[in-house]
Amino acid sequence: MILGAIEAGGTKFICAVADEQFNVTERITIKTTDPETTMTQVVDFFKQYETDLAGIGIGSFGPIDAKTTSPTYGHITSTPKLKWRNFDFLNFLKGYFDIPMTFTSDVNASAVGEFHSVENQEVESLVYYTVGTGIGGGAVQKGELIGGQGFTEMGHQLIKRHSDDDYEGTCPYHGDCLEGLAAGPAILGRYEIEGKDLAEDHAYWEILAYYLAQCAVNTTQFYTPDKIIFGGGVMKQEHLFPKIREQFKALNQDYMAVGDLECYITGPSLGDDAAVLGCLEMIKAALSDA
Amino acid sequence: MILGAIEAGGTKFICAVADEQFNVTERITIKTTDPETTMTQVVDFFKQYETDLAGIGIGSFGPIDAKTTSPTYGHITSTPKLKWRNFDFLNFLKGYFDIPMTFTSDVNASAVGEFHSVENQEVESLVYYTVGTGIGGGAVQKGELIGGQGFTEMGHQLIKRHSDDDYEGTCPYHGDCLEGLAAGPAILGRYEIEGKDLAEDHAYWEILAYYLAQCAVNTTQFYTPDKIIFGGGVMKQEHLFPKIREQFKALNQDYMAVGDLECYITGPSLGDDAAVLGCLEMIKAALSDA
Repeated sequence: MILGAIEAGGTKFICAVADEQFNVTERITIKTTDPETTMTQVVDFFKQYETDLAGIGIGSFGPIDAKTTSPTYGHITSTPKLKWRNFDFLNFLKGYFDIPMTFTSDVNASAVGEFHSVENQEVESLVYYTVGTGIGGGAVQKGELIGGQGFTEMGHQLIKRHSDDDYEGTCPYHGDCLEGLAAGPAILGRYEIEGKDLAEDHAYWEILAYYLAQCAVNTTQFYTPDKIIFGGGVMKQEHLFPKIREQFKALNQDYMAVGDLECYITGPSLGDDAAVLGCLEMIKAALSDA
Repeated sequence: MILGAIEAGGTKFICAVADEQFNVTERITIKTTDPETTMTQVVDFFKQYETDLAGIGIGSFGPIDAKTTSPTYGHITSTPKLKWRNFDFLNFLKGYFDIPMTFTSDVNASAVGEFHSVENQEVESLVYYTVGTGIGGGAVQKGELIGGQGFTEMGHQLIKRHSDDDYEGTCPYHGDCLEGLAAGPAILGRYEIEGKDLAEDHAYWEILAYYLAQCAVNTTQFYTPDKIIFGGGVMKQEHLFPKIREQFKALNQDYMAVGDLECYITGPSLGDDAAVLGCLEMIKAALSDA
């Protein structure tokens, strides 16, 4: 039995096949262009394994419709990538492979992947955020995704503005929500350079840490997780972690007991492999339930 | 078989007994004074039913330790009510009744109660907030409380300040968190009168609605629930509901699909009975699992 995984990102797709112990035997990367070009390569990849392929787990960029009872279940919905808007991802694939598939957001897949990683064996619940071109979040409690059949969007939570920050925010829906103030494009929008080119001692990093610390405070109060993981491009700036922890401490005022902050607010343990593992976990679970 | 329930509130305790179909056969109200006085009356009440009493579900004011693995599980912890601080609620009762008991926060109990109400039969997940002397929240997804063994504290979420509001907030931990800006004492602190004496056309109600609408936006993004219920003393001001819905609409910008707002943001269907029903549901579930 072979398990398939598709991490469908906004810039690249990763397709992988693995055995039941999640040992990945082959993986490829495909550029995200338009549905026809990209998906043809996806189909070609999995066709090689068709005889033994038991199911495919999908974690997609969004917004998506992940509600199994919805008529547009399995679609990418109102994405700014116009070519992908309203693309019926799941049924397109089902046209080529008549096997079980799971469909969730890429960040939910990463959250599930991290939850099942070796490092998090003792963890009963965790929340995974990706801070990159946008901010997405996925929350797992006892192996189950919070948000039920839908998917959570806590990247757009409303938070307090830093007193030194008057940037209007990039979010087309909310302006200065968390994503609008703290994702990668908000750095470019403020300083006309990318985060990776901003000096480590630039005052912005404390502002960003203040926003991400608020995110961690709210996350703690909404979910009381065992761990909050921040991944994604912006978090490659590792100096952010101690800054976030420090501001979390100042904001939390010991109100919520979270244990050792070094363990509580941390980077991903799987690097960029979390989403693929999460897709594999989800399709395996679905196959076992069936 | 008789089921017991204790809704332990900061001003009064409600003790009730019911059959397995949750028909309450007797309930009494006890003033919350000090643990000895109050708890003696609690014990006396349940002693009458000792022969058939199968278990007691407890929903307590807090903060509490609800983590079953914790050495102080079942305690009321850092409450400002000094006489109740560190009171070992669960073990006190266990000293009189050697039967199964469940222990959660009063607002979690209310959330569970509402989830099981007739009106919410079609609802898969809901969040219940009480807006009174403080703000507490409980979230249920498919019958399970979110927050695992702990309990959530989204009453203290960090939100944006209204541009016409410079009140510092009443929260001893966070100052101007949601509870600090929007609970009952923040009305008294601002205007030196109670909410019930504030005219319906006072500008404050729009400010309050803005804070509670932000709470609803964040709650939607964190949980994607089927319903958000606002109960508690402040919400007796029914004119708040349309104001909250209107501001929710303006803040959400159709980003999250929530259906009919009249159904989505609403008052409790069980009035003040939610917590008792929730306690009964929780102890019955615990007895079935055992």
